[in-house]
Amino acid sequence: MSQQYQPIFVFEDTVRIYDTDAQGIVHYAGYYRFFTNATEKFMIEKVGIPFPIVNDEFWFVIVESHATYHKPAKLGDRLTVTLTPKALSKKVIRFEYKISTRGELIVDGYTVHVAINPKIWKSREIPDEILNKIFTP
Amino acid sequence: MSQQYQPIFVFEDTVRIYDTDAQGIVHYAGYYRFFTNATEKFMIEKVGIPFPIVNDEFWFVIVESHATYHKPAKLGDRLTVTLTPKALSKKVIRFEYKISTRGELIVDGYTVHVAINPKIWKSREIPDEILNKIFTP
Amino acid sequence: MSQQYQPIFVFEDTVRIYDTDAQGIVHYAGYYRFFTNATEKFMIEKVGIPFPIVNDEFWFVIVESHATYHKPAKLGDRLTVTLTPKALSKKVIRFEYKISTRGELIVDGYTVHVAINPKIWKSREIPDEILNKIFTP
Amino acid sequence: MSQQYQPIFVFEDTVRIYDTDAQGIVHYAGYYRFFTNATEKFMIEKVGIPFPIVNDEFWFVIVESHATYHKPAKLGDRLTVTLTPKALSKKVIRFEYKISTRGELIVDGYTVHVAINPKIWKSREIPDEILNKIFTP
Repeated sequence: MSQQYQPIFVFEDTVRIYDTDAQGIVHYAGYYRFFTNATEKFMIEKVGIPFPIVNDEFWFVIVESHATYHKPAKLGDRLTVTLTPKALSKKVIRFEYKISTRGELIVDGYTVHVAINPKIWKSREIPDEILNKIFTP
Repeated sequence: MSQQYQPIFVFEDTVRIYDTDAQGIVHYAGYYRFFTNATEKFMIEKVGIPFPIVNDEFWFVIVESHATYHKPAKLGDRLTVTLTPKALSKKVIRFEYKISTRGELIVDGYTVHVAINPKIWKSREIPDEILNKIFTP
Repeated sequence: MSQQYQPIFVFEDTVRIYDTDAQGIVHYAGYYRFFTNATEKFMIEKVGIPFPIVNDEFWFVIVESHATYHKPAKLGDRLTVTLTPKALSKKVIRFEYKISTRGELIVDGYTVHVAINPKIWKSREIPDEILNKIFTP
Repeated sequence: MSQQYQPIFVFEDTVRIYDTDAQGIVHYAGYYRFFTNATEKFMIEKVGIPFPIVNDEFWFVIVESHATYHKPAKLGDRLTVTLTPKALSKKVIRFEYKISTRGELIVDGYTVHVAINPKIWKSREIPDEILNKIFTP
């Protein structure tokens, strides 16, 4: 199988006062807010589904999160957040993020999402139509 | 009608790094976390009910919140939070809070909670048994 | 003195999963995030200053916050947030907010901000140039 | 070098309404609050230093965070959080966490902390006295 093209989607965000802590920088868990913003905007704008609650029988739940902090972001910083989706299976997607400001990479990380049927809280397949939209550049 | 005795309940809390912001003090909306902690501990420990989701037909929802900030709290401060419950009707309770540290009042405020049936999202009466426990010193 | 024109500024926001709680609605303290977003965007876009940390000798700190909740907002709701600034003195500004979704008012409230010199943590006057920009429609 | 004993410290916590989201479970980034609580309590109670701001020349900043979510925690759940410190160098500590409720492991993860001098924002060594207290059972 040949090398797959990895689409990259780009979002903008801003560091607000409530993202910061007494060290004068963004609190480490606060970067997950920027990851979440990128994912939810991607799903509604590019894929056309609400996220992470798609409907009564289809939710995405997070099974892993990771971030590496290279440099701190500060109050008022304008952030560029890129998102690259990767399929791990028919049921599991991994979103990879890179956050940069003033042209410099400051944080990267990922979240792993499993599709479930919330009525029985069991994993389920993601419809092909949705998978196709997620991985189409 | 005679003046009613107002019971006052006392809780301890601590300012964590995620409560602070880049001004080096607790973020103004963060004090509502301390209000919430006091209320949830009061309801489970003194009244004996989970809160704010009591059961499938009985939730409390918040219709008003207020805080006045006299002095700032800082990272690591040990807080004393007092809670005074007031009945506004058979359906509505107001909790009043005072937060102090090092013997000094720093924040006061209140939250107003309406009992609802979440299945129809309409207000309902709070059982007398629960009201009695809330207002017994 | 004649009735003053009150300028109203309008911002858009979106309810994210982290704004919601287990009652399926926006957590009451979460609306202060929308208030904060509106204020910080107003200050940078309309007034041209970073906020609430303007510079080393000029910060705004919050001395009061209030919200009344008429109806709940839910995950994915697009919100319209209006902001009306009111001068309480040369040192104190009150921002009033109305949040609506689908054409219906759901929350209103306000925050009161005092200008301070953070080096001595004392109140100070807001420069006329900034006051003029805040109250110019 | 022989296998080192790894001390394990145990803390209790509670899921509050603000930790949950509209999926009825703790929001994934919310578990970092429990990690932070455990670390800050450990540092003040066992090691005897404020954390993460030790003093004007000694802060800890986070360079990596990770969590794996096995099962969800819900509103009101009482959590047991264990913390195991690991030295990565004289300047870097990794704290490993396991969160369980009702006897079942639900989340594990870690945070990596670098000691810095905040005046120059450069890494520095952690004093032996503090390292000894961190790694003494």
